[in-house]
Amino acid sequence: MRKEVITIKSKMLHVNDLFPEGKLGFIAGPCAVESKQQIDETAAFLSGIGVKILRGGAFKPRTSPDSFQGLGVEGLKLMSDAAKRNGMLMVTEVMSMHELETVSEYADILQIGSRNCQNFSLLHEVGKLSKPVLLKRGFGNTIEEFYQASRHISAEGNQEIILVERGIRTFETSTRFTLDIAAIPILKKMVPYPILVDPSHPAGIRALVEPLALAAVAAGSHGLMIEVHPDPDHAKSDSLQQLTFQGFTDLRKRALSVAESLH
Amino acid sequence: MRKEVITIKSKMLHVNDLFPEGKLGFIAGPCAVESKQQIDETAAFLSGIGVKILRGGAFKPRTSPDSFQGLGVEGLKLMSDAAKRNGMLMVTEVMSMHELETVSEYADILQIGSRNCQNFSLLHEVGKLSKPVLLKRGFGNTIEEFYQASRHISAEGNQEIILVERGIRTFETSTRFTLDIAAIPILKKMVPYPILVDPSHPAGIRALVEPLALAAVAAGSHGLMIEVHPDPDHAKSDSLQQLTFQGFTDLRKRALSVAESLH
Amino acid sequence: MRKEVITIKSKMLHVNDLFPEGKLGFIAGPCAVESKQQIDETAAFLSGIGVKILRGGAFKPRTSPDSFQGLGVEGLKLMSDAAKRNGMLMVTEVMSMHELETVSEYADILQIGSRNCQNFSLLHEVGKLSKPVLLKRGFGNTIEEFYQASRHISAEGNQEIILVERGIRTFETSTRFTLDIAAIPILKKMVPYPILVDPSHPAGIRALVEPLALAAVAAGSHGLMIEVHPDPDHAKSDSLQQLTFQGFTDLRKRALSVAESLH
Amino acid sequence: MRKEVITIKSKMLHVNDLFPEGKLGFIAGPCAVESKQQIDETAAFLSGIGVKILRGGAFKPRTSPDSFQGLGVEGLKLMSDAAKRNGMLMVTEVMSMHELETVSEYADILQIGSRNCQNFSLLHEVGKLSKPVLLKRGFGNTIEEFYQASRHISAEGNQEIILVERGIRTFETSTRFTLDIAAIPILKKMVPYPILVDPSHPAGIRALVEPLALAAVAAGSHGLMIEVHPDPDHAKSDSLQQLTFQGFTDLRKRALSVAESLH
Repeated sequence: MRKEVITIKSKMLHVNDLFPEGKLGFIAGPCAVESKQQIDETAAFLSGIGVKILRGGAFKPRTSPDSFQGLGVEGLKLMSDAAKRNGMLMVTEVMSMHELETVSEYADILQIGSRNCQNFSLLHEVGKLSKPVLLKRGFGNTIEEFYQASRHISAEGNQEIILVERGIRTFETSTRFTLDIAAIPILKKMVPYPILVDPSHPAGIRALVEPLALAAVAAGSHGLMIEVHPDPDHAKSDSLQQLTFQGFTDLRKRALSVAESLH
Repeated sequence: MRKEVITIKSKMLHVNDLFPEGKLGFIAGPCAVESKQQIDETAAFLSGIGVKILRGGAFKPRTSPDSFQGLGVEGLKLMSDAAKRNGMLMVTEVMSMHELETVSEYADILQIGSRNCQNFSLLHEVGKLSKPVLLKRGFGNTIEEFYQASRHISAEGNQEIILVERGIRTFETSTRFTLDIAAIPILKKMVPYPILVDPSHPAGIRALVEPLALAAVAAGSHGLMIEVHPDPDHAKSDSLQQLTFQGFTDLRKRALSVAESLH
Repeated sequence: MRKEVITIKSKMLHVNDLFPEGKLGFIAGPCAVESKQQIDETAAFLSGIGVKILRGGAFKPRTSPDSFQGLGVEGLKLMSDAAKRNGMLMVTEVMSMHELETVSEYADILQIGSRNCQNFSLLHEVGKLSKPVLLKRGFGNTIEEFYQASRHISAEGNQEIILVERGIRTFETSTRFTLDIAAIPILKKMVPYPILVDPSHPAGIRALVEPLALAAVAAGSHGLMIEVHPDPDHAKSDSLQQLTFQGFTDLRKRALSVAESLH
Repeated sequence: MRKEVITIKSKMLHVNDLFPEGKLGFIAGPCAVESKQQIDETAAFLSGIGVKILRGGAFKPRTSPDSFQGLGVEGLKLMSDAAKRNGMLMVTEVMSMHELETVSEYADILQIGSRNCQNFSLLHEVGKLSKPVLLKRGFGNTIEEFYQASRHISAEGNQEIILVERGIRTFETSTRFTLDIAAIPILKKMVPYPILVDPSHPAGIRALVEPLALAAVAAGSHGLMIEVHPDPDHAKSDSLQQLTFQGFTDLRKRALSVAESLH
C-alpha cells in the first residue's frame, strides 16, 4: 500500500498545472458512461479539439432509487480506456469509501459530488490520498461551508484540490439551480486552488449552458466542467442539458475568446 | 449472516410502536456526549420524567475541521451505558459505513444526519440492516428529495424509518434554519413512518425552541427530538440552543398539553 | 380634514383590544368579493359562529394583468354592507394612495399586502391616518425588514398596527410559500402589536391550511387570518386554498382548543 | 394634458435605440444625489468617458425610516441640471404616484425600484406615460413574476421598458444578493426590451462589482447600471459598493473588451 502511494506520488498531478491562472481549462464528457461506443466517440471528439480531461459518471448519485444508477466498475473501465487511448486524464465521482479503492485505480482525479460536499468521512478519506480531488459545492451550502469542506480534505494532507461552483437552491424555478457567479472571485481570494464552474447543472437546459459558461469565464473562473454527449436526446440522464459536439465546439470557441479578452 | 439477521429481527424495534399515531414521543439528550457525568446525569433526568429515547453525538459532523469532533467510540460506550442503566433506547449519528458496524453495536436506532441525507451509499448500507433508521432532512433538500432518500433505505429492505424535519436554508437570518412546518402533514400523507421534528437546530437559540416545538406538535408531529444539556452554557457545541433540564421539563409539559388538545 | 381625524379618533379602534394577549382572534372571508350573495352569505355565516372581522379583496394585486382584478369600489360597498349588517368590522387591501381615501371610507382596518410591504410611500400615508393598519410580511423580506416596515408606519404617528406572517419564498415547491413559524415569537419580542398568521397563502391547498393554522396558534400567534368561501371550487381566485364553511368551523374549534391548552 | 403628451411623444426615447442589441450601454452615477458638487463632478466625469445616462437617487427607498431618505425635489433639480450640462439623459427612481408628476418633469427615464416591482398601481401609472420605464427585478420575485410585472406596464400602452436584473434573496450571506445570471438569456427570449444588469447591489462590496459586471456582459446583457461616486468612502448610502471614478473607468474598459469578444 505504502509503495503504491509512493509510486503515485512520483507522478503526482498538480492542480495548478492543470488549471493555471490566466488560462482557461476544460473538463468535458457525458453525464454518465452508457456504452463503449458512447464514451470512445466522446473522448476522441474532445481530445481532437484539445480538451485534456474527460468526465463521466460510473457510480451515479440519483435522487430516486428507480433512476439509472450508472454502469459501476464496467463504466470506470470503459472511461479509463477511452481516456488513455486519447491521451486524456479522467475524472469521475466517488460516492463512498466503499468504492474509493476501485475508483482510485481508474481515475486520475476523484470527484466528490454536490450531495457529498459535507460528507466529512469521505472528505477525510480522499484527504489521505495522493490524488487530486475535485469537490463540487453542495447546492444547499454557503461559500463558507464549501471552503470549510475543502479544509476537511487539506487538513488530512492532500492539497491538490479543485473547487467547482455548480449552482445553489433558490426560489427561482426557471433554472434547475441558481449559478452563484460571485462565488468565483470570493473563493479565489480564500484558497490557492483552481476554481471551476459547472454551467450544465444550474442551466438544466441546453440553451442556457453557454451564457452561464461565458459568464463564469468573464468572472475569472479557471475552467469549465461541461456535460457533452454524442446524442443528448437519447442520454440516460440529464438529457435536456447535455451539449452536442457542435454545441460544445461553439461554446469552447466563444469561451476562449472571452478569456482572451480579459488579458 | 442470515442467522444474525433473524436473531436481530426477533427483537426488532418497530418505529410505529415507538411513535404511535395520536401519541407524542420524545427523543432528548445532549448535542454531543462530553463526559460520563454529563451523559449519566442527563439520562437519569430524562428517564425520570418519562423520556424513553436518549440522543447524543459521538461522531459529530462539523462544518469546520477545527471544531470538536466528538468522543468517538468512547462516547458510544458512555451513552450506551447511560441508556441501559436508565432503561432507555439510544440513538446516535452514523457518518460513514466505516463506523457503521461499531455504531450498530451500541445504538438502538441509527441516525443519518442532515448533511448525509443524500449520501446514497450510506442510505443503502443502513437499508440492509435490521435496525431502525432516523433520517434527518437535508437542509438543502426538498420534501420530495427527502422522501426519495427514505426510499433509498426502504428499497434495500429496511422499512423501520423515522423521518425528522429540522429546518431548511432560506434567506431569513434571525434563525439558524427555517422550520418547514408544512413538511409534517405532507410527509404524513406520503409515508407510513413516524414524522418527528427537531426544533433545536432551526431555533438556534434556547428561547425559540419551545414555540417551534409546540407548533410542530399542533401540526401533527409524532414526536420531538430535542437537545438537552445539564449545563448548556458550558456545552462543547450548540451551547446557545440546548435546553436546561428545567427548560425541557416545561416544554414537555406544554407539548403534551397541546397534543392532548388535538383529540 | 383635522376635524375628520378627531371624529375618527373618538371611535378609534385599538388593535390590542381586537387581539388581546392570551386570546385567539379570527379574521376571515373570501380572497375576493365576487357578488352580493357571496359576501352576504359569508358574513352571516362568520358572524354566526363568533368571528368579528370580515376580510375580502376589492382591489386585488395580481401577478398577471390578465387575472381577475377585483370589483373595486363596488366590492368595497358590498363588503361594507355585509359587515355592518352582521355587526362585523371589515378589513380590505389598499394598493395605492390613489384608492386610499375611498378604501378608508369603507374599511375599518386597512390592509397593506405582501407585495407592498416595502412600498414606503404607502406606508407613510397610512401612518398619517387614525385607522388600524394590517401589514403583511413581504414574501421576500426578512423579519428585520418587516419590523422596519412597521416603523415606517409608526414613525408617522399611527401605532395601531397588526403584523401578519404569511410565508416566505424558499426553494421548497410543495407549498406556495414556507410559513416562517419562528417569526411569531421573534416579532412578539420586538413590537407591542398583535402578531397574526395567514395560513392560507403558504398552504396553497385546502388540506394544509389547518395544520399550519394550529401550528401558528401553538407558537403564540394572537390570531389567524383565513380565506373562507361559500363555494371555493368556483372562486375567481385562490380556489384551491379557500376553506368551505364546514372546513373553517372545524379549524376554528381545533384552534381554540389548542389556544386553550397553552394556558 | 393631451398636448403635453404629444409634445413628449415627438421626442420620445426608444429604449432599443438607447441599448441596441450587440452594443454595450452604461448607466452610472451615485446611489443618492448628495450635493451639487458631487453630482456635477460625477456627470462631468461620466460624460467625459462616453457614458450617456446618469443615474442617482432623489427619493430613496430605505429599509429603516431613520436612514438618509434623499434630497427629494432639490436632488431632482441638481441631477437634471448636471445631466443637461453634460449632454446626458437622466434616470431616477419614482417611489409613488404622489411624486410621479414631479419626477417626470425632470427625469428622462423613470425607474421603478426592486421593492416596487409588484406595486401594480404604480406600474399602471407609468404604463400610461410616454416615457421609458426602467423596471428592476424584485429581490423576492421569480423571473416569471418580473415578466408579468412588465406586462402590467405594457398593457397600459407604454412599450418603452428596460428590465434590470439586480440579484435575488438566497441563503448565501457572502454577498448582499445573489445575481441571477440566467435571467439575462431567459428574459431576452421572453421580451423585446433591453435587459440590463446592476452588479452593484448584489456585490455589496466594491471588489465584487467588476467580476459580476463582466459576467453579465458575457451572458449577453445589453448594458450595465453601476453606482459610481467621487468619494465612495464618504457616501451617505451604499458606501461599500460604489465605485471610484478610476474603478469605473477600469471596469468599463474591460466590459467593452468582453463585449467585443462576443462578436
